[in-house]
Amino acid sequence: MPALSPTLELAFELIRRPSVTPADEGCQALMCERLAAAGFNIEPMRIEEVDNFWARRGGDGPVLCFAGHTDVVPTGPLEAWQYPPFEPQIDAQGMLRGRGAADMKGSLAAMITAVERFVADHPNHQGAIAFLITSDEEGPAQHGTRAVVERLRARNERLDWCIVGEPSSTEQLGDIVKNGRRGSLGATLTVRGKQGHVAYPHLAKNPIHLAAPALAELAGEHWDSGNAYFPPTSLQISNIHAGTGATNVIPGELTCVFNFRFSTESTVESLQQRVAAILDRHGLDWHIDWALSGLPFLTQPGALLDAVAASIEAVCGIHTTPSTSGGTSDGRFIATLGTQVVELGPLNATIHQRDEHIRAADLDALSEIYYQTLVRLLAC
Amino acid sequence: MPALSPTLELAFELIRRPSVTPADEGCQALMCERLAAAGFNIEPMRIEEVDNFWARRGGDGPVLCFAGHTDVVPTGPLEAWQYPPFEPQIDAQGMLRGRGAADMKGSLAAMITAVERFVADHPNHQGAIAFLITSDEEGPAQHGTRAVVERLRARNERLDWCIVGEPSSTEQLGDIVKNGRRGSLGATLTVRGKQGHVAYPHLAKNPIHLAAPALAELAGEHWDSGNAYFPPTSLQISNIHAGTGATNVIPGELTCVFNFRFSTESTVESLQQRVAAILDRHGLDWHIDWALSGLPFLTQPGALLDAVAASIEAVCGIHTTPSTSGGTSDGRFIATLGTQVVELGPLNATIHQRDEHIRAADLDALSEIYYQTLVRLLAC
Repeated sequence: MPALSPTLELAFELIRRPSVTPADEGCQALMCERLAAAGFNIEPMRIEEVDNFWARRGGDGPVLCFAGHTDVVPTGPLEAWQYPPFEPQIDAQGMLRGRGAADMKGSLAAMITAVERFVADHPNHQGAIAFLITSDEEGPAQHGTRAVVERLRARNERLDWCIVGEPSSTEQLGDIVKNGRRGSLGATLTVRGKQGHVAYPHLAKNPIHLAAPALAELAGEHWDSGNAYFPPTSLQISNIHAGTGATNVIPGELTCVFNFRFSTESTVESLQQRVAAILDRHGLDWHIDWALSGLPFLTQPGALLDAVAASIEAVCGIHTTPSTSGGTSDGRFIATLGTQVVELGPLNATIHQRDEHIRAADLDALSEIYYQTLVRLLAC
Repeated sequence: MPALSPTLELAFELIRRPSVTPADEGCQALMCERLAAAGFNIEPMRIEEVDNFWARRGGDGPVLCFAGHTDVVPTGPLEAWQYPPFEPQIDAQGMLRGRGAADMKGSLAAMITAVERFVADHPNHQGAIAFLITSDEEGPAQHGTRAVVERLRARNERLDWCIVGEPSSTEQLGDIVKNGRRGSLGATLTVRGKQGHVAYPHLAKNPIHLAAPALAELAGEHWDSGNAYFPPTSLQISNIHAGTGATNVIPGELTCVFNFRFSTESTVESLQQRVAAILDRHGLDWHIDWALSGLPFLTQPGALLDAVAASIEAVCGIHTTPSTSGGTSDGRFIATLGTQVVELGPLNATIHQRDEHIRAADLDALSEIYYQTLVRLLAC
């Protein structure tokens, strides 16, 4: 086998560590060792059972932070994997195989080597470079980035720009960067009726019958039209349950779970009020437990997006497309500091799947994109 | 305690036997002993795990059959009972207490004593008297009355009139007799969608969203207006389930269970076609497993209803009201023989509940109603 590039060598070392959420398995120690050698001040932040660290190099001036996670999702049944998940390798097609190759140990390796090279080339760079790394992005995410951000906020840490290494690319490296995310608002709805026998419906109130028209209206509602940056707000009912299993009993209660992915054209309050109005209009006896997972955030065109787009064009020869679609990421927490946040990483086609893989050559290209972005933003 | 009437004495003996479905615990042996002594030919019909018997006394001519069941529903937690369920007693308010007092060991006792007295008074009565008794009316009801009826049909047994001892009365003894029952048609509906992530609804098909308007229409549909004998056909959805529990997954399938209680204005085929039309109009990918529990049956005014109504008026001083409302009973099986069927028994307020009870005096009155009905139909 030919010698690995520094980025692939580090990716191998990270993938070998079976750091299923919230385990870190020494990934962060490895990263910290490299960053310390590059002149970073390292600040471990273990919060409850979650390993995190904050690292910073530089003085005053704008701060560019690299953010990411060392944890990976579980493998599922090992016999389903053709390539053992924690034995990284490059196959005959040039694919780097292993759990976390795409999400997101490959990106972490590319960040480290990019920064090492940049610091060597520009030891007296402007501003500062930082790392915000967690081992709980794939899990509850309570004691990871969210908690670290609160500590940084409490001490007024400056954080101008942030690149999250989430696998944003879809068809080829760099085709998509995420410059925002929709908000996510969950709801558990209970509709109360009155239990009874199916033969005596006049003595009961069937919550399925009562709720069905309201659910149809919720499912069909036009919440907003989105805007230049966001697709329209979408509601999806993910679970619905009523009934005891008995075929002759009208149930006393119906529960259903739904989730909004919402644009900046709607607010938590506006959505809650509109749902309440629909349920009330149908005369339901209802209760909702709301759970806000994240507010929407948006990074408008500016220094960070310009630097990233120019670097992608230089390395990959393509115009990147900013997008706010898809799921949530830790970017939502960092954005609350007023930071410009983009997500840029390898192809996401195989994330969370067995035999997760990416093109090995993409990691070297990704490291180069990160390097050029550093140059564009912080070189003297 | 004062001496019990013969009817109450027999009711006590039956209630003492803890004959929870499909157990009979000797109830039928006791009844058969009494009927044999009254000149009945006894024919035990144990089918699978279910005790049944057919008994008949008399020659040619019209046959009046008494039908009922010796099994009772489970007690549930015994500590919830103020009066032990299998220790019959008459309380200070004159209530007969015990599991089966109302449903329907009280009726069985009243039938036996009525027949004993009638046979003693009219040893050469017209036609014949019969008993069709099962120990599985409260359970699956596969090897009970349904199976006995098939044997009777196979040998062309004549069965003109039938009184089922189900507790038909609601406010006072005899106020209601059931002269028919609605049909019962069950359905298990599956609506197929396409599983996906709530953040990417355009890649999925949410079966909850697709089904909700159709379910609303099914719940709101006017199936028919009923007629002079039947209330309107009613559909009730008893169970609905979709979703894996995960809040971010659009489920691939929705299932729901519903049940028609239908009048003679609708048929199984018409209901099935109308449901299919609604589901098709909403463009659903659907499948239904239908389960017909019973066709509707109706006993129009005639010799049996006249005799029962006159006997109730003579004994209780009230005009009875024929009704087809409520749940199903074994009457639906017997009616398929072309038999006029009515259900007449004590008050149903406490059936299937803890501390089941009826007025003790009502049982003696019920025996007298049965006796007078025998006289009106079969006395020489």
